[in-house]
Amino acid sequence: MVRSSLITLILLLNPLVTSFRPHIPPPNPPTKLRSSASATAFSVDDAFHNFVTMIERVQQDIIASIEERETAKFSDDPWSTNLSQGRTRVIEGGSIIEKGAVSVSVVERSTLSPARAETISARGIEVKEGAEYCAAALSLVLHTRSPLIPTFRSDIRVFCLKEAAWVGGGADLTPYYLFDEDVKEFHGKYKDLCERHGQNYEEYKKVCDDYFYIPARKEHRGVGGIFFDDLPLTPVSFSFVEQLAELWMPSWLDTICDKRMNDEYTEAQRDWQLIRRGRYLEFNLLYDRGVRFGLATENPRVEGILVSAPPLIKWTYNHKVETGSEEERLQKILESPLAWA
Amino acid sequence: MVRSSLITLILLLNPLVTSFRPHIPPPNPPTKLRSSASATAFSVDDAFHNFVTMIERVQQDIIASIEERETAKFSDDPWSTNLSQGRTRVIEGGSIIEKGAVSVSVVERSTLSPARAETISARGIEVKEGAEYCAAALSLVLHTRSPLIPTFRSDIRVFCLKEAAWVGGGADLTPYYLFDEDVKEFHGKYKDLCERHGQNYEEYKKVCDDYFYIPARKEHRGVGGIFFDDLPLTPVSFSFVEQLAELWMPSWLDTICDKRMNDEYTEAQRDWQLIRRGRYLEFNLLYDRGVRFGLATENPRVEGILVSAPPLIKWTYNHKVETGSEEERLQKILESPLAWA
Repeated sequence: MVRSSLITLILLLNPLVTSFRPHIPPPNPPTKLRSSASATAFSVDDAFHNFVTMIERVQQDIIASIEERETAKFSDDPWSTNLSQGRTRVIEGGSIIEKGAVSVSVVERSTLSPARAETISARGIEVKEGAEYCAAALSLVLHTRSPLIPTFRSDIRVFCLKEAAWVGGGADLTPYYLFDEDVKEFHGKYKDLCERHGQNYEEYKKVCDDYFYIPARKEHRGVGGIFFDDLPLTPVSFSFVEQLAELWMPSWLDTICDKRMNDEYTEAQRDWQLIRRGRYLEFNLLYDRGVRFGLATENPRVEGILVSAPPLIKWTYNHKVETGSEEERLQKILESPLAWA
Repeated sequence: MVRSSLITLILLLNPLVTSFRPHIPPPNPPTKLRSSASATAFSVDDAFHNFVTMIERVQQDIIASIEERETAKFSDDPWSTNLSQGRTRVIEGGSIIEKGAVSVSVVERSTLSPARAETISARGIEVKEGAEYCAAALSLVLHTRSPLIPTFRSDIRVFCLKEAAWVGGGADLTPYYLFDEDVKEFHGKYKDLCERHGQNYEEYKKVCDDYFYIPARKEHRGVGGIFFDDLPLTPVSFSFVEQLAELWMPSWLDTICDKRMNDEYTEAQRDWQLIRRGRYLEFNLLYDRGVRFGLATENPRVEGILVSAPPLIKWTYNHKVETGSEEERLQKILESPLAWA
């Protein structure tokens, strides 16, 4: 269920996928799914376009916040296909962000393949192949230069059928060194956000930990945050994901980055960051079903999909952390996530 | 069929895999399979132990050849589990080889799971679950420091049931800059080897090109070499794979490395190498079913499986080669492999 959300995200970037099963909420409870559109005052169509307008605005705001502090500028790579369009904005070689992407992607109107229609029908909504859907997402991956500042990943997304729509999203940190107060503050902000919107932070925190997990290494990729899916699109959930996206920079750039960006680090700390980045990539290439499905489509936007890869990665054989070190402390917490908020 | 060979290789490293389908030759022609043991003068058991002795000797010889020229030494990491054992020897930070592994792995005696036994039976050999098998492999990945010297990958492997056994193997180059004469000489040596042993070079060359392919990018990983599988183990095929392994260093270290190791290169050429290494890893993590199956086992030897990862990798967004450049020439040949020999 959770993994399907990232599949959807990549699906957006690759609307020509035909063998792909769309992200559709689970059938339990079906009434919730059916009520998502009828319970709202606005139409799905309006809501979708409001969502797109909102993510385009937030994309600009985020880029402005970052460029205000950065030595580098974002490149601008607008793209379109028959069925979809997007704007991939990438920063490379910055003083804070070594490589980052803030991407909008939109499938304005596409039609369900037989396989997709069947999946949806199986979940309790009567649709036939050829039914229209639309989808959109704003997604961020920001890899920092300093090993003292965590990598930040986040997204919000919407998927619409004619009579119902759902939103999902999340934000999480992948640190190289742990500053407990930073992680607590980060989680605290998302807990507050969830509580203000009647959302279950504990559940979304667990979903995030569960998804960003590397089974072969028995460790989580980072210290998490929140991750959720399958929220029926209503004015309330729209506002929740909008405020989620508006919290991203305050929770990371304005706090953690501003606090740590001038702190000096050693070459050994940088090395550890480059080694840990290998785990980031391992997760993306081995386990992220969105990446795998996306790349498996007929004409994938490979660079758009792999823009999440860290800029520089080191692979050392059998690297071991020293007993009692900060690296060991991080490692242990990645194996057994803490309750931060 | 081809991919199964690398699965087998990883299977060797992870003998506890239970959900895994073993590498078994295809049923066509079944008589060939059945005759593999009975046509030979030696028993499968003897042949297996001769194979293990041979790969241990070749491992030592290869390490000696490399250390003769290198500033760094190989580490020695012998390992064993209930059912298997091996010796992973790794060199890092050498003057020629930035990172490399020369690994032996042996499953002395394990038993077929129901799923495996069923697969074998379906291919024309009557076996029941619980039947014994053994397997062994010698595998190399040598990542060079200089972008003017290609990465070298190779392996030989054996898989034995009680009454039949099969060998496979290969050797291939992943260059960053093309020196046509080097690639021609490399392919020429393996063509000669195949012809001396009545083996079909053209077929094995095509199998190699087909396997080391990145569909999302529509490009091959390197300029190939040979790759084969499913050869019934006989004195003739034993001699073929032995001489194959003995050709590895003469075809790469003694020729290409010795010729190019002192050539100077630019920072831009080094950058191109680091970017191309990303493709190497993409193949390993996204498409190499051996790696994926290996990592999916219950307690994988992660470091042993991922020792093939390049030491340092760069991921630049949307890197484009310049028109008319050497990088573009390589790119085009990776998209459409040439007949080198």
